[in-house]
Amino acid sequence: MTNRVHHGPTAPTSQAIAALRPLPADAVRLDREGLLGAWQDRNTAATLPHCVDQLDARGNLNNLRRVTGDYDGAFAGYWFADTDIYKTLEAAWWAGGFASFVAEIAHLLEKAQDADGYLMSYFQVEHRDRQWKELPSSHEMYSAGHLIQAGVAAARSAPDDPAAQQLLAVARHFADLLVERFSEGTEEALDGHPQVETALVELYRVTGHRPYLDLAARFIDLRGHGLLGPESRFHTRHYYQDHAPFRAADEVTGHAVRQVYLAAGAVDVAVETGDTELLLAAERLWESAIATKTYLTGGQGSRHRDEAFGDPYELPPDRAYAETCAAIGSFHWSWRLLLATGKVRYADEMERLLYNGIAASTSLDGTAFFYSNPLQVRTGHDGSDEDAPGQRLNWYSCACCPPNLARLMASLHTYAATGGPEGLQLHLYTAGTFSAGGRTVRIETAYPWDETVTVTVTETTAEPWTLALRVPNWCVDARLTLDGMPVPAAAHDGYVHLSRTWLPGDRVELVLAMPVRLVTAHPRVDAVRGTAAVTRGPVVYCLEHADMPDELDGFAFEDVELDSARPATVVHNRHSIAPVALHTPVRARDAAGDAPYQPLNAAAPPATLTATVPAIPYFLWANRAPGPMRVWIPLAPQVRQA
Amino acid sequence: MTNRVHHGPTAPTSQAIAALRPLPADAVRLDREGLLGAWQDRNTAATLPHCVDQLDARGNLNNLRRVTGDYDGAFAGYWFADTDIYKTLEAAWWAGGFASFVAEIAHLLEKAQDADGYLMSYFQVEHRDRQWKELPSSHEMYSAGHLIQAGVAAARSAPDDPAAQQLLAVARHFADLLVERFSEGTEEALDGHPQVETALVELYRVTGHRPYLDLAARFIDLRGHGLLGPESRFHTRHYYQDHAPFRAADEVTGHAVRQVYLAAGAVDVAVETGDTELLLAAERLWESAIATKTYLTGGQGSRHRDEAFGDPYELPPDRAYAETCAAIGSFHWSWRLLLATGKVRYADEMERLLYNGIAASTSLDGTAFFYSNPLQVRTGHDGSDEDAPGQRLNWYSCACCPPNLARLMASLHTYAATGGPEGLQLHLYTAGTFSAGGRTVRIETAYPWDETVTVTVTETTAEPWTLALRVPNWCVDARLTLDGMPVPAAAHDGYVHLSRTWLPGDRVELVLAMPVRLVTAHPRVDAVRGTAAVTRGPVVYCLEHADMPDELDGFAFEDVELDSARPATVVHNRHSIAPVALHTPVRARDAAGDAPYQPLNAAAPPATLTATVPAIPYFLWANRAPGPMRVWIPLAPQVRQA
Repeated sequence: MTNRVHHGPTAPTSQAIAALRPLPADAVRLDREGLLGAWQDRNTAATLPHCVDQLDARGNLNNLRRVTGDYDGAFAGYWFADTDIYKTLEAAWWAGGFASFVAEIAHLLEKAQDADGYLMSYFQVEHRDRQWKELPSSHEMYSAGHLIQAGVAAARSAPDDPAAQQLLAVARHFADLLVERFSEGTEEALDGHPQVETALVELYRVTGHRPYLDLAARFIDLRGHGLLGPESRFHTRHYYQDHAPFRAADEVTGHAVRQVYLAAGAVDVAVETGDTELLLAAERLWESAIATKTYLTGGQGSRHRDEAFGDPYELPPDRAYAETCAAIGSFHWSWRLLLATGKVRYADEMERLLYNGIAASTSLDGTAFFYSNPLQVRTGHDGSDEDAPGQRLNWYSCACCPPNLARLMASLHTYAATGGPEGLQLHLYTAGTFSAGGRTVRIETAYPWDETVTVTVTETTAEPWTLALRVPNWCVDARLTLDGMPVPAAAHDGYVHLSRTWLPGDRVELVLAMPVRLVTAHPRVDAVRGTAAVTRGPVVYCLEHADMPDELDGFAFEDVELDSARPATVVHNRHSIAPVALHTPVRARDAAGDAPYQPLNAAAPPATLTATVPAIPYFLWANRAPGPMRVWIPLAPQVRQA
Repeated sequence: MTNRVHHGPTAPTSQAIAALRPLPADAVRLDREGLLGAWQDRNTAATLPHCVDQLDARGNLNNLRRVTGDYDGAFAGYWFADTDIYKTLEAAWWAGGFASFVAEIAHLLEKAQDADGYLMSYFQVEHRDRQWKELPSSHEMYSAGHLIQAGVAAARSAPDDPAAQQLLAVARHFADLLVERFSEGTEEALDGHPQVETALVELYRVTGHRPYLDLAARFIDLRGHGLLGPESRFHTRHYYQDHAPFRAADEVTGHAVRQVYLAAGAVDVAVETGDTELLLAAERLWESAIATKTYLTGGQGSRHRDEAFGDPYELPPDRAYAETCAAIGSFHWSWRLLLATGKVRYADEMERLLYNGIAASTSLDGTAFFYSNPLQVRTGHDGSDEDAPGQRLNWYSCACCPPNLARLMASLHTYAATGGPEGLQLHLYTAGTFSAGGRTVRIETAYPWDETVTVTVTETTAEPWTLALRVPNWCVDARLTLDGMPVPAAAHDGYVHLSRTWLPGDRVELVLAMPVRLVTAHPRVDAVRGTAAVTRGPVVYCLEHADMPDELDGFAFEDVELDSARPATVVHNRHSIAPVALHTPVRARDAAGDAPYQPLNAAAPPATLTATVPAIPYFLWANRAPGPMRVWIPLAPQVRQA
């Protein structure tokens, strides 16, 4: 047992720009009765073991054993297949309890690592001559970054564990090679896929070794000057975010995962170097992304081609790419900005992502995953390749997303609250216990299904401190009681601040009213004009074919229209697939016979059949038989008069 | 001078299923005063010479010279770069007058051809060991097909020309190799890219050599059984149309160009083998494609990823791929079905394609081209790679489209009319002279700008015959006079049939009323809900940034809404970029400050600024400075009450 603080991911140094401070990982415990705790439990019990199994089954581990001479088969999977191992390993360290796995892998990695520190199995057998020669596509630094993050997780979670020390040493060895090859005064080069930036900053935080931070800062500033080579038919400079320096970019572009990973790394560099200009650039870019290039679910990336952001307001629900890894990267980006600035908007975005864009990617049982997360599926049968399935798959040839989910979920408890000498700030409401500096609160809530969040002080210090409670941006009616007495719930900058001398047993009840809200998109979002989405609290709902009632037999799913003149009702049913469903009035008209194009004045008659259909949380779709789904529902014509 | 009939492309044998017969190529002359004639002139004067130049500049010809030992540089461009040569060559033969070019190429091809007939330069120097081993992607038969079509064009256009004979011999030599390797009783194999099917049938038509037809029929029937290999992350069987036999397919899928080329080839096989089942399958598939997967412009292919068809009703205007080659292939498919069945719907589709999806691909000067043809461009600056430019480019690394346009335009005169002993059928109205069997008519018209088509009989036979005049599907008010006297214009199956004993000088005047028509899409086309398109006659119009009037300064292009309560006016101006513009009432409201998502009941106020903006023909967009454009215009809110 050590007295050291066990940090989670993202642990800014004491010198960093930081409005808020993360809680130590061991100062938080999520209860499995809460939704986030249940997800974290499922991750440990199902997702993470599944990932570990896949590393064997898909040949990722054998790729390393080829390097050590313990396997003589062919290389399996994509050239960056090692990163699936690293992300799973990182998840295992955050989760704890995978002792033999983490020890085996640390040993294997040490054995596979070259004397100079190089470690990427694809380039260590047949392709040694290609090392460092194809940086726009080789993912060598991207791979190093994930190795480093696994090492950081090990060092923070179990600093005294020999396997953790072994892994950290391997990671540092590779990081030192990067410093030797690419730091100031040596080669000017970039990896086509950002990731190493944030990893190097985290390694600096763990080790205090400044060259790691300097190299990360150098990578941020080298980008945007065409180092990644000329434009080609397939990849423009926008694809790599190499068209403009990060500080000058005014919109997110290109490959979405690369963009958000780059942005997260930029914030890490900014806060540790005190570079407020860079931090402001990251904030400006985030604002632009949220205003014009983000789905209602928080998903990002509108194009399958290039897995990329589109133009502003180009947000097709059916061809949304909205890659799971982009949502995770966006979550990391928002989290870093929340810590740096304390602005509630970043916590709002984390919540939206968590309950929608991220949660949707995992099946109920935790062992099947979406790679892309469309907001509409028509038939799903045409061209339903791996990136656009109507069903979650157990694994992918490019399996970046499942272990990325595993590492996020394994560390999920560290993102819910922050705290320091001034008190505790609660950002994401879920059942659990949260501590900072001798003050502990217990949260009881069935959020986001229920409106009520109860916070009980279970441990406190004698001096007064402030409990800050986030009022989500979707909430227009927040009510608060303190030990049963109403108190004003007026939020200051998005948080209600309760400052007092607390006593154990003090109890705060926050009620965040959750009426059904019909939402429309900005008029420039052409793809969903004339539609509305059904939401409640932070949760976006959808219609799914499996819920269509008998009276709609004979009508195509796509002919169902939202009848917003009649109110939807909230139905709680803990035993259903959806703990809360929204029974939504609709109309329908069989449009099968309509001409593809017709004169405006020959418009079809309004729908006459009326019915009520259950809308379920979007994140729970595709847990039954495959079929059509949609978030944005066409408004029945009478509504458009409004 | 020979007495032989000079056929154009697609010349069914006398045994073929054929409701209509094409006119010989030399029985038609388009006048440059008409739009189609002007395009054909521009093709000969600008596009075709430009293509010829590019073959030298881009290294296509040197690729062949590497094979003959006359060039020792590197291979240039895509592995199927020879096909750019073949399509240009085909165009040159149809156009006539490129004597030195066609002679030089015939000589070069003969010299480059292997002794066994093989000819594809990429696989004749370094990659000989890969010949025939990568058929799903090698394009070897696709390349052979274009060679064959060039040979057919030569043989039909100038059968006595030694260069034509030389080229035909080269093409036959390769075709004979295909027969030897792949005909019944030998290897079962397919090219991943259909094209050779239609070429082989045409070669059969020229030569009478039945094995060519049999091989084409075999390729049609082998497809759909998984011969092209397992599904992969990148290419499903749908991509290659290898998921279901052509006879059983109920919707167009996968790579759009491959699909429509396959369909055209299937019709060619069907009519020559008398296979009515196959013909019906092609008709059924065409109906399905037009009903659910075709843009208002006739463009096809909704996805950049895989250059593919999407799901039914998935027709995003901004991310329309609508490849130029797919529009050309669709035109070929419709033309073949028109000849086989005589049904007007196929001529309607040819017209729609010609004035919209195809015409838009070429710049006013004939030397710049679109590869994809979106119906909306927002900014065009993000990810504006070769496939999605906001501006036409002079050439492409994959330059399939420009020479494909050249060969279509060079043979354009052969698609306007058909005829035989029973008379003449006029399908596409343009100024020119059309003959069949001693009967000749001259058409004078400024169609599609003007409503009036004047047909004068200039030569006739003594016996009565029938002049059939198409009444386009967009026209609800057709009027007809015969020598100045009104006659009923009731169309039978889409054509007005005038049967009589004609005298030279007889004059028919057909007036096809062309009011401005606002058009809406099927309610299942989510991407353009709440919008309308402005059309007149066969021409689809668009709004382009360059035409926005001063009073809209300060408003974003995307905030302009169509005010359908006020009528649009037709403005003729022969000296303008658009001979006919439609002055269209609009409204505007600055939406820049609107939230990305907001409650339905907080919907923005209706636009208040009113203005009138010129809509120009879609096919003329992007001939000025790059910027936003859109075909589908949001309807101002008051309109939605209708």
